[in-house]
Amino acid sequence: MNYRSISKFFIGSLAGALSAGAVAAQWEVLPETAPSPADNPTTSAKVELGKMLYFDPRFSATGTVSCDSCHNVMEGGDDHRSTSMGVHGKIGGRNAPTVYNAAFHSAQFWDGRAASLEEQAKGPVVNPVEMGMKDLDSAVDRLRAIPGYQEYFARAFGEENPITGDNAAKAVAAYERTLITPNSPYDRYVKGEKTALSEQQVRGMETFDQLGCTSCHAGANFDGPGMPMGQPMLMKFPTFPDNNPYVAEYHLMDDKGRAVETGKIEDEHLWRVPTLRNLGYTAPYFHNGLVKDLGEAVRVMAKSQLNKDLSDAQVTDVVAFLGALNGPFPVQSMPRLPATPGDLLP
Amino acid sequence: MNYRSISKFFIGSLAGALSAGAVAAQWEVLPETAPSPADNPTTSAKVELGKMLYFDPRFSATGTVSCDSCHNVMEGGDDHRSTSMGVHGKIGGRNAPTVYNAAFHSAQFWDGRAASLEEQAKGPVVNPVEMGMKDLDSAVDRLRAIPGYQEYFARAFGEENPITGDNAAKAVAAYERTLITPNSPYDRYVKGEKTALSEQQVRGMETFDQLGCTSCHAGANFDGPGMPMGQPMLMKFPTFPDNNPYVAEYHLMDDKGRAVETGKIEDEHLWRVPTLRNLGYTAPYFHNGLVKDLGEAVRVMAKSQLNKDLSDAQVTDVVAFLGALNGPFPVQSMPRLPATPGDLLP
Repeated sequence: MNYRSISKFFIGSLAGALSAGAVAAQWEVLPETAPSPADNPTTSAKVELGKMLYFDPRFSATGTVSCDSCHNVMEGGDDHRSTSMGVHGKIGGRNAPTVYNAAFHSAQFWDGRAASLEEQAKGPVVNPVEMGMKDLDSAVDRLRAIPGYQEYFARAFGEENPITGDNAAKAVAAYERTLITPNSPYDRYVKGEKTALSEQQVRGMETFDQLGCTSCHAGANFDGPGMPMGQPMLMKFPTFPDNNPYVAEYHLMDDKGRAVETGKIEDEHLWRVPTLRNLGYTAPYFHNGLVKDLGEAVRVMAKSQLNKDLSDAQVTDVVAFLGALNGPFPVQSMPRLPATPGDLLP
Repeated sequence: MNYRSISKFFIGSLAGALSAGAVAAQWEVLPETAPSPADNPTTSAKVELGKMLYFDPRFSATGTVSCDSCHNVMEGGDDHRSTSMGVHGKIGGRNAPTVYNAAFHSAQFWDGRAASLEEQAKGPVVNPVEMGMKDLDSAVDRLRAIPGYQEYFARAFGEENPITGDNAAKAVAAYERTLITPNSPYDRYVKGEKTALSEQQVRGMETFDQLGCTSCHAGANFDGPGMPMGQPMLMKFPTFPDNNPYVAEYHLMDDKGRAVETGKIEDEHLWRVPTLRNLGYTAPYFHNGLVKDLGEAVRVMAKSQLNKDLSDAQVTDVVAFLGALNGPFPVQSMPRLPATPGDLLP
């Protein structure tokens, strides 16, 4: 079963769920640790190196853009822009998704085209409007030119030729697997701490479920029910484009989603289901970042995916519930980056 | 005595010292804490807030540039570029000086035009090629639009209207006063730990003194002997422009220094004496960042300020000594930034 047939299966399930009326959601809590693949078990040495690389702007063409530039972990793991700004002030085409809890996604990027965090990590480095390096080898050359990195790579990956693009990506992915936010008020509530949510938040949680939001925003990360790692949970957005004023207002169909990559008509407007955690920190919303207000985002989703017009009370209740999915964020030390030899950068 | 007459005084002293032969330097160690002005005593509440502001890119026009973008404290407190890149990929005219130990400078910016860290902190926010805000009020409006900042400002500055541009600058300055690097190998050596320096470093230290470098690069921070806070230690660079091939090679006189600000002919090519601490982390060198190699920077300085051609052995010894002025850098926690309301940024 490939991702496309799986996504069709879920579209089918969604329609079934809706026609059958509300289905009680299985509320899941976020695990305290993120899963890691067999070929890249998380170690403290990799996490330490990965954090350094994540914050290091020296592997961008201008020396000014790091992973953290667009996925700022000091706030919500994104950049607050509709679409990101990379080297030379160039502007990208999609909204930067939060790095927080990306470790739980079964696939990465808005269109799910990367099967793992390791694969994802290599993308922005060579994207001409992001970090703008000519190729991955050029980035690795820069790593090798910084003597201080040698010992960190050796500690994480062994002594023999440890500085490679694959290892750098593995280290960054290992660090990103620590960027998770378990024990939100929602998680504490589900684990039994009944005072963790307000009355309004509980009402919003029920509304969220009854409306059918949980058909797609399911699982511990609200990004789809447990898909095998590597296979994206893709959905058509908007599912209901007709008589939907939001489509024009927010240009919801200008970007063809997954089809931009595959060129296939059946992939048009398919998108990976994004997490709903930490939305209080990640405005503006959607793949194009054109919706600034969370309440409006809820209205757009209800109309576009469920063909429903919500009351103001429903919207504020759901927004209150979504607030229960914020943080807490991990406490982090600041990395120290090794010195640059004077002749490295232009 | 204003800064100009003071700088002339030191030019006079330098000439005297040189004609009289070598003068033994008074080696000073960097204090463990930086001085703070009477109207902005350092408090932990200010430092905490200042660190948040220092790392927050939301007060730049594009939402992408923070203080840390060009003064990266995770490495040497600068950006490794010849001249910095601000909003929209715009490029500035001078090399970003390191923020580390700037707290000990008697004045700020390459031309010493800001009398304090507080005054300096307001400059880049409204510089069109740095953070690019229309005016300081616009930046303060953004601060006020982030509800989470209110409590941090109130804690640092009291409850009544605490969010002002002046207070933001005070907080950033308070944080910057923690960005100091006492206890380098040099400091430990001067304090009596004779094994802290290698034989070559001790030889380089003597050469550095005997050549006359200490006439300007004096004091604990190697940025000039104790000037009153607010008054820059300015020197003419190059002092010896004639028969100096480096002037053309590195465009040493394209930028008129202090005179760009004042328009006065007597200020042409006057520059604040920069610190020599952490040079191993702050290549490339000089106001225009055109010299990439530290040994070459030493040669250029000896020729341009002392009219001396150094031997290779002298250069390598002095470079070894300068290496003893690197770090250690303070261990820091990563700040958490308050959430942005969805409608704050474009």
